[in-house]
This record gives sequence, structure tokens and C-alpha cells, in this order.
Amino acid sequence: MDKKTENFLGIDVGGTHVKIGLVNTKGNIIQFAKEETASLRKHPQGFNLGFVETVGKYLKKYPEVRHVGIGLPGLVSKDRTTTLEIPAIGELNGFNLKGALLEKFPDIIFHLENDASAAAVGELHFGTGDNSDSYLFITLGTGIGSALIIDGEVFKGVRGNAMEMGHMLSRGNSRLEPLIGRNGILNIAKRMLDAFPNDAGELSQVELGMHVLVAAANKGNGVALKTFAEVGEIMGEAIVSTIRILDVNEIYFGGGISAALPFILPSMEKCIHKYLSPYYLSDLKMQRATLENDAGTLGAAALCFMD
Amino acid sequence: MDKKTENFLGIDVGGTHVKIGLVNTKGNIIQFAKEETASLRKHPQGFNLGFVETVGKYLKKYPEVRHVGIGLPGLVSKDRTTTLEIPAIGELNGFNLKGALLEKFPDIIFHLENDASAAAVGELHFGTGDNSDSYLFITLGTGIGSALIIDGEVFKGVRGNAMEMGHMLSRGNSRLEPLIGRNGILNIAKRMLDAFPNDAGELSQVELGMHVLVAAANKGNGVALKTFAEVGEIMGEAIVSTIRILDVNEIYFGGGISAALPFILPSMEKCIHKYLSPYYLSDLKMQRATLENDAGTLGAAALCFMD
Repeated sequence: MDKKTENFLGIDVGGTHVKIGLVNTKGNIIQFAKEETASLRKHPQGFNLGFVETVGKYLKKYPEVRHVGIGLPGLVSKDRTTTLEIPAIGELNGFNLKGALLEKFPDIIFHLENDASAAAVGELHFGTGDNSDSYLFITLGTGIGSALIIDGEVFKGVRGNAMEMGHMLSRGNSRLEPLIGRNGILNIAKRMLDAFPNDAGELSQVELGMHVLVAAANKGNGVALKTFAEVGEIMGEAIVSTIRILDVNEIYFGGGISAALPFILPSMEKCIHKYLSPYYLSDLKMQRATLENDAGTLGAAALCFMD
Repeated sequence: MDKKTENFLGIDVGGTHVKIGLVNTKGNIIQFAKEETASLRKHPQGFNLGFVETVGKYLKKYPEVRHVGIGLPGLVSKDRTTTLEIPAIGELNGFNLKGALLEKFPDIIFHLENDASAAAVGELHFGTGDNSDSYLFITLGTGIGSALIIDGEVFKGVRGNAMEMGHMLSRGNSRLEPLIGRNGILNIAKRMLDAFPNDAGELSQVELGMHVLVAAANKGNGVALKTFAEVGEIMGEAIVSTIRILDVNEIYFGGGISAALPFILPSMEKCIHKYLSPYYLSDLKMQRATLENDAGTLGAAALCFMD
């Protein structure tokens, strides 16, 4: 089978669902399914072998597949064989997942990668933006993930797991993720509601959630706009430090909360322009990623393009 | 001439002095000289051509030299030909220094590099520690510089100038350098003197300086110890974020203030252990670099080992 025409299996492993997509080389999802992570954990031999069995189920269903890409929510070994620290699925910690898969399916080529890096690779191969082959990718969602693509390759750092921006220290030495992950943003919104009741508008009547907040910002709601402005400042500070370390000038934002990017961007840009010198600012580009809901599955499938 | 036996010229360009060392491949400085930067700036044709002329003077003095390494205090182009932003010597901004040198001395091989990266390369080739070929290098001095060596190479990031840790944002969004560069440390000491007059001891009688402060810490002076403890916390926070981005577990500290490392280390380690997970901590090594006063010149000379 020619790698240019074959279909890949992209598997996005998460704490709630394991999503499986049959994806062609153009980035179209031909078939899609999801399994509950909790169900796999109840497998008689535990999650790990339950997962291997599940992969087998889909390989049987799609016998033409030769490459399988797997995105994982945590730290993986530098050689991409072993899952090291996967907070959402502790059973995977220190498990040679690639070894277990190859033992059962020796003819298949498996590509394991951190899920944020997979999403960044997805944007590289399947995105419709004008990205170059070197950029910082930040996923804004329940958590904050990040990845760096340099010359078309995932930057692994020294030991294999670079780019955990969500764990950088920010204001008052909180980690970034609790500050401006989903729950952090809702906390900021609650604080803004208390501080600016006159700007609350419809938000005083409804249960706060990300969709509600984005919709309100779209209608010009003061509290929603103030909330995303603060998110932008905090994100901007982390980006300043990250740019100083990586010297990158192209940044894409993915994940559900990137829908709020238009409201986050102004204060983020203001912060970045305050702290960076002309060298860093001259060609700085910050945009929303083009892959949206399917970024996890497509990213996992896109790993099959890597050697 | 064989690269294994020849002598290199190492030139460390700074805002106050340009230091020139004739260095053998074992890292011994055979001859040493320094020129005042201010004098070179007064050259009739300006600093840049004055510098080229100075290089010529030493090439004439040491006619056996074929490789010249030059460490520069700022940002250089990714191809290491052009100085981009050199705050201490603005004349160099946007100057094709390598081109100008090659025009005058076409038979010489010039290696240009940021000075912190040069110091890190010096440790790689001339250091007497047990460093591997992948580590984070931090210079604590008047300013804060840093570099990352991966697999024996300088990490350049996407555009050429990675690793400006001194410009990361820290507490209250100050840059790291003003907080814990030399002046920042003296400011902390003044604050501690005011806050803890009973612990001031001899420090209440003398003019504060780094040597005084380190000597006092060595004698157990309370204010000096509190000062370096705070430096350690602030440095530790920046290192946590940097480790999360680069996944590096070997760190060397150079520069004059690294003499205070024994007093900085405990609070720094405490901070790092608080915020990093076991994966990052298992083999974490933090040590003082082995090259001391001559690190700039030796680092510049060590660049001649690079291709």
C-alpha cells in the first residue's frame, strides 16, 4: 500500500473518551467511533490490555490500515514507545504501550505522541492555514497544552517531553493551567461578575459556562470581555517567556476556547508588545488553528506522516 | 595545521572590555589581552571597523591562528553572520560582522555566537565537570544569560536566538534580570537589611557589594543568607518554567555570582521540588560550572571546535 493513498487510523486517547478515526491522507475522517475510557478501565485485564484489544477491534474492521497514530494525554518516553506519566489514566504510567501493540500486531506501524504535539502535527499536515513548518501551537481547553514544531518535526527537548506550557509558573506562582484552563476562566468570570455587577447583563441570569461566555462576548457583554481580557494578559505573559526561550514568531491556538481568541488577542498582544524587543515583534503572527473539533483525531492520524 | 594541535583565538566582546585570548586545544590561555570597548568606539571609522582592525592586530601577532571564536552580548542571526540586537554596543545592530571579517581575512574561519551560548560551549569542551552533552547553562552575573546544549550543539530555537532566560517574566511581571542580576540582588539585600536589622551584623557597617555579600554568607550572616534564599526562590521559579518547556535535567551555573550557589541552591531546590513531578526530578542535577573567570574567553575559543 502506498503511504500517499492509504488510510490511517488516528486514535485520540483522553480521560473521558478514546476517539478513533479512519482518516485519509487528505485529512478527511471517513469513519469515526468513540469508546468510553471508563469502560476500557473495567476490562478484566485492565485499561492497558483493554486498549490494545480495542485497537485490534478497529484494525480488524479496517484491514487496509498499516499506520496507526496515537495521541496521549501526558508524558511519553523520548523513543515514543512507553507512556511515562499520564495523569488521567494512571494505569499507563511506565507502560511499554508500543511494545504491547507490536506484540499483538507486528505488521502495523504505530506512532505514539503527546496529544498536544499530535494536534500541532495535525495542523502541519491537514490544516488549511498558511503556517510555515516551524511554529508554537497552544491548545486552550479544559487544560492548556502546547507543542513546538521546528522544521516540520516535533521538538522533544532534551529528554523527550518539552513544551508543557500549562505547567509554567505564572502570577503568584500558580501554574498556568489552573489560572486559564476552562475552570480558571470560569473563576475569573465569577470574580468579574462580583466586581462589575453593572456590566453583568444576561450573565447574571444564567449558569456560567464557556459557550455562554463566548456567546456573551460576541454580543459585547462587559463581564465576558473583561474576563477574556484578563485571560489574554496571563496568556501573553507566558508567551513572552516562551518566546524568549524558543525564539518562535508563529503561534497557533487550538482547542475549544480558541473560539474566544478574538477577545483574548488584544490584551495578549498588548502584553507581548510591552515586553518584547523589535527583533521578536517584527514578523510575529498569532492566529487560530484551522482544525477545530476533530483536531485530536486528525492530529493522531497525521502522526502517520512522520518517520 | 591540524585542528587538534593548533591554537585558537577566543574573543569575548563585552560592553566594557573586548577580551582576547590565545587558547590551545586543551583550554589553556597562552596569551591574554584586553581592549577597552569605549576606545574601539572612538575609532575614526566607528566600533565595527575598529573591531575588525583589532582582530587583525592579533591575527598578525599570532600568525599560526586559523580559527577565531567570537562571543557577543546579544542577538545574532541564525546563520551566525550578522549581529542583530547588541544592547551594549548599538553600532553592531544589523551589521554583517562575519562578512566584514572575511573580507579582510579570507583565510580565517570565524565562529560567531551569543556569549552565554559560548560559555556553555566552553564548559562542554574545556570544563572539568562530569557534564553530559545536553544541559542548561545559566550565567549569573551583572546580567542573567542562558544557553541550552542539546547533543553537543547550541540550541538556536526557531529563528536563531533561543534561551534569553534573563528576559522571562517573573514575579509581578518584572523581567528576571532586573530582579536577580547583580543590581537586583543588591536591592534584595538592602530590603533585607531594612527588614531584619538584627541580622545585619557586619553588613550594617560596609558598602554592599557582591563580594561582601558572598563573604558574609560564608560566615553565616543572616541578611546575606536571607538575600540568597530569595534569589534561589526567584531563580527556582524561572527554572521550573524552563524545565517544563525544554525537559532538561542537567543545569550548570556560571558567572561571578555562581560563587554564591551554595546559598542559592537550597531554596531553589525547594521551589523546584514543589512544582515539578517525579519524572522531572528523578535525575535532576544542578551544579556550579567549572570554568570561572576565564569562561568568556575560553567559551569564545571553544566555538572553534564547532563546525
